[in-house]
Amino acid sequence: MNIGIIGLGLIGGSIGLKLKKSNFGDKFIGMDYNHDNALNALKLGIVDEIIPLKDLVMQSSLIILSIPVDGIKKILPSILNKISINTVILDTGSTKKTICNSIRYHPKRNRFVATHPIAGIEKSGPISASTDLFYNKNCIICDSELSDPDAIYIVKKIYSIMGMEMIYVTSEEHDMYIAYVSHLPHVISFSLANTVLKKFEKRKEIINNMMGSGLYSTTRLAKSKAETWLPIFMSNRENIIQSINFYIDSLEDVRNYLLKKKFNKIFQYIKRANDIKDNKKYV
Amino acid sequence: MNIGIIGLGLIGGSIGLKLKKSNFGDKFIGMDYNHDNALNALKLGIVDEIIPLKDLVMQSSLIILSIPVDGIKKILPSILNKISINTVILDTGSTKKTICNSIRYHPKRNRFVATHPIAGIEKSGPISASTDLFYNKNCIICDSELSDPDAIYIVKKIYSIMGMEMIYVTSEEHDMYIAYVSHLPHVISFSLANTVLKKFEKRKEIINNMMGSGLYSTTRLAKSKAETWLPIFMSNRENIIQSINFYIDSLEDVRNYLLKKKFNKIFQYIKRANDIKDNKKYV
Repeated sequence: MNIGIIGLGLIGGSIGLKLKKSNFGDKFIGMDYNHDNALNALKLGIVDEIIPLKDLVMQSSLIILSIPVDGIKKILPSILNKISINTVILDTGSTKKTICNSIRYHPKRNRFVATHPIAGIEKSGPISASTDLFYNKNCIICDSELSDPDAIYIVKKIYSIMGMEMIYVTSEEHDMYIAYVSHLPHVISFSLANTVLKKFEKRKEIINNMMGSGLYSTTRLAKSKAETWLPIFMSNRENIIQSINFYIDSLEDVRNYLLKKKFNKIFQYIKRANDIKDNKKYV
Repeated sequence: MNIGIIGLGLIGGSIGLKLKKSNFGDKFIGMDYNHDNALNALKLGIVDEIIPLKDLVMQSSLIILSIPVDGIKKILPSILNKISINTVILDTGSTKKTICNSIRYHPKRNRFVATHPIAGIEKSGPISASTDLFYNKNCIICDSELSDPDAIYIVKKIYSIMGMEMIYVTSEEHDMYIAYVSHLPHVISFSLANTVLKKFEKRKEIINNMMGSGLYSTTRLAKSKAETWLPIFMSNRENIIQSINFYIDSLEDVRNYLLKKKFNKIFQYIKRANDIKDNKKYV
């Protein structure tokens, strides 16, 4: 079985590395719109060959689509047009509704499986790829009833090799949930970085002198790439706006408690927040 | 030299452990308003003896005051009343202005050194104390011109043993700076935890299923203790309110870009945030 990987960054690169190491598949072919990524992926042995998109689509039995979400939405319909009825294609995009909607009535919708392996980090590119990036993490599979059982079977097999646990939800639920647990934290982190950078614009050494591990944690996501995150924000715009609204409400609550010296309310607000539990997989 | 530690939690406990291990000082005496903390500190060898506050103050040449900031403000004047003119007292509170103001005109102000070792973690208590908590971190020393040179000398020596680098600012500057780099990140994290917990109140398993490392980072501080943080928020209220205002402005900017589909603005907003640099000491 030939495996074609479109997008040889952190995610596509890590899947390629792990499948190859596990002797799953015969030949790994790939392409990336970023020439450096393609060259590095070849050098690192993530793929055996870099070939044009058209050829990759014709020659692969399994296609892994791991490019930014706007790119997926753009090329997925034309890829589906060209594949044989036995080919399986999966995507790894961080939003799912606009992607699934874009091919909802495509005659080969059933060959596509919409997935979101929850394993991104703020680093990017094939040089950051690793075989254990996905190990013991969750993979969300969306609208699985719209995919053929054999397509679901192979996708589950791939993610099992990666060491992932499968979770099934609709693409609509996925986008709403993920807005709160991933997209909102990114907005929060970008905004905190911008607030601090602006406040100390003329005295940047202050940030470095006073920064503790608290600022480090809360601005870790602020290093994430604009090329990845702008398309995510665009495609999950309404859920993200709603999550920002709720979040500003919460900030305004605590600001009002401070303004009115309602210290008992602040105490309860902190105690409630203490209830957040870590998912040990991601610690 | 007898060293007296008032407050045997994470900070006081870690200082005690490290000084003892470095054979600095002769006898370590301590007290904690929390009986369990006092007993655990004794068991862990952080102090040699637990004695009443009054006796500790009389018997120590160096007093380390590492209790919540409201407690420091409350007992510092009466401790200064009782110490000899050779005793040195330092505090480790996370806010400095109200503490420094509370003894600004005390006749023994010169025996006090206001410090803030930037090394807190979300864990607490003497059982979390460690000798390397402070290693290679920054320690802020405030209003140092109001302390006697010999007092500054001994405090610098202690923090050097801990492996810290000293930074000098006024207590007023400290509180303004730290509002942005520490207190605001805590507010942000508490609010995010509360937003997510409220949103998924009836389906808590969703948080666990969908949570990635992003939510983990941004809610790490949300596990911090209300007993520590309420007094910090109270004593740095105005700076924190100002920082929340600036922060909400930044969130409203990105919300407006999303509402008006100003995607180029979002791209620039992310790119600007990418400029935040880690202080390698705290990574």
